[in-house]
Amino acid sequence: MSTVETIDSIETPALLVDMDALEWNIRVMADFMKGRRVRLRPHFKTHKSPAICHRQLAAGAKGICCAKLGEAEVLLTSGISDVLIANQVIDPAKIARLAGLARGARVTVCADNERNISDLSAAASRAGATVYVLVEVDVGMNRCGVKTAEEALSLARRITGSPGLSFEGIQAYEGHLVQLPEIEKRRAGVREMEATIGGVKALLEEKGLPVKEISGDNTIWTEIQAGSYVFMDTSYDEMGLPFRESLSLLATVIHTHAGRAVTDAGMKVCSTDHGQPSVKGHPGMEVRTNEEHGIVADPAGELRYAQKIEYIPSHCCTTVNLHDRYYCMRNGLLEAVWPIPGRGRSQ
Amino acid sequence: MSTVETIDSIETPALLVDMDALEWNIRVMADFMKGRRVRLRPHFKTHKSPAICHRQLAAGAKGICCAKLGEAEVLLTSGISDVLIANQVIDPAKIARLAGLARGARVTVCADNERNISDLSAAASRAGATVYVLVEVDVGMNRCGVKTAEEALSLARRITGSPGLSFEGIQAYEGHLVQLPEIEKRRAGVREMEATIGGVKALLEEKGLPVKEISGDNTIWTEIQAGSYVFMDTSYDEMGLPFRESLSLLATVIHTHAGRAVTDAGMKVCSTDHGQPSVKGHPGMEVRTNEEHGIVADPAGELRYAQKIEYIPSHCCTTVNLHDRYYCMRNGLLEAVWPIPGRGRSQ
Repeated sequence: MSTVETIDSIETPALLVDMDALEWNIRVMADFMKGRRVRLRPHFKTHKSPAICHRQLAAGAKGICCAKLGEAEVLLTSGISDVLIANQVIDPAKIARLAGLARGARVTVCADNERNISDLSAAASRAGATVYVLVEVDVGMNRCGVKTAEEALSLARRITGSPGLSFEGIQAYEGHLVQLPEIEKRRAGVREMEATIGGVKALLEEKGLPVKEISGDNTIWTEIQAGSYVFMDTSYDEMGLPFRESLSLLATVIHTHAGRAVTDAGMKVCSTDHGQPSVKGHPGMEVRTNEEHGIVADPAGELRYAQKIEYIPSHCCTTVNLHDRYYCMRNGLLEAVWPIPGRGRSQ
Repeated sequence: MSTVETIDSIETPALLVDMDALEWNIRVMADFMKGRRVRLRPHFKTHKSPAICHRQLAAGAKGICCAKLGEAEVLLTSGISDVLIANQVIDPAKIARLAGLARGARVTVCADNERNISDLSAAASRAGATVYVLVEVDVGMNRCGVKTAEEALSLARRITGSPGLSFEGIQAYEGHLVQLPEIEKRRAGVREMEATIGGVKALLEEKGLPVKEISGDNTIWTEIQAGSYVFMDTSYDEMGLPFRESLSLLATVIHTHAGRAVTDAGMKVCSTDHGQPSVKGHPGMEVRTNEEHGIVADPAGELRYAQKIEYIPSHCCTTVNLHDRYYCMRNGLLEAVWPIPGRGRSQ
């Protein structure tokens, strides 16, 4: 047996990372951010890997953001000391964990509710910690966040007056615009959102509350929460960005018959919430996934029994959440196996 | 703090099992099987929990089936000694693991390919083990399996003549019929499939190859592979079966505004491949899931900030695969926390 593993010796299904493409993506983003006022705070929800976070930080990222308290726990026990939970944490038991984490690190959380601010303040005071807080403002996604500048002012004042808390600024995420196909519609939506947030910021600062940070997904903010650029997927590929596909799902053809190849990789290893995956190197082949199998249309009979093929997932974030490790490949050889300790940390 | 946990003290998102409903489902199925020639071999792919397997075995199941070698490894190291992998295992490294497992237990696998049978025989011989083999016959699902009785005969002969292997019979799964809404179409499809498999069995036995087992999802077979009956989900609920919903996903309302409630449970904790979940006790409320959030339409404003609600998943199998533990509830109190060691065992 060879001491160096190639794709042929990796058991499937397996999640591969093309290291050259990963490093390219991190470098392209770092170059894009150079000389700008806005800083990068990469999102952990995509890759869930502290190993990738440390590479993003080494390339200049100011800190990491994540979606869940359980993810923040992974980050803060993996040598990362500046974490934003870009979400609300409202359960009393979770708030106690959050305050505990904040004793040894800079932890920021979003809030959009007075009761939540009281609970955060009480827990931070008990823990002798400072919790940094952004007021979330809804910029049209119709999810969490306050709806008016007056509500934002009221919450910012409350945070400023609460022991254990530090008001840092605003969280505003335009998830409803991110994948609009027409760039003009995206731009118009962004202008509208900028006007909204500009108004909130002006009101708060007029009232003596400095807005140090505006965090989200926009280059006029103070920090950008970017996730998928490290991996890309078929959904993001459609946007024509300068990033390369670095994530793929290795599968084995376990059966061929009459223009179909059946693989060992179904929806339990490759998410379908953004559609079916495509086959790397075979853009014309359509894939249909069952729970444990993929059925690849192969009318020309190109795929052979026992052949390894790679899917490009349609949604990298939800696909990663199905796996415990990355097989990190460079020039066709296995370079490292990285755990994915953030997988499943949804609490 | 109370020493007994209620739903209010469980951190969310969390996968709940209603123990009374689970036990009801296992008992209803056991009663249905009583006095029949066909035996039950419950499918592990649904619940991925040896704790549930042991309850199914205690209720009379003959053994367990699973979809992946990695799942068989969980089962055979959890006190279960008769396991069918209802799938092909073709990778040489995996076949070596399979043969190793077969040294200490009864392990059955499916085959539909001559080369695979040779590989299985060589590995079983090297390990000094017997691997039991079913020939998979395609009954219209257009996935794996041989297409004709003659091919089945040829493979059955090859298995019978191969050291280390024991020919046991046929695997035939009518996945294409399982969720057909019209029962008459299901029945017609089943009759057709029974005729196909009857023909294969007759040919093999005429040629001196006893078909001891016919495994799949049909009561005229020798064993039934049933999975979802333990939990049910909104897809199976539509079929009017006597089983109860025992699985739910506990979520917290983290924001309410203008007829919408936002929860902390999105598609990373509740699969959407069979559609969106429903809300237990609120059949009219529609749910839309983002990655980390659920948005519940609540026009009457019934849901309150910080309230816990339960989703009924649309697909139990893929939802379970997102979780590491079950919170087992009885009469509203937490009775046990069970690990889900089969989660993610797709290799």
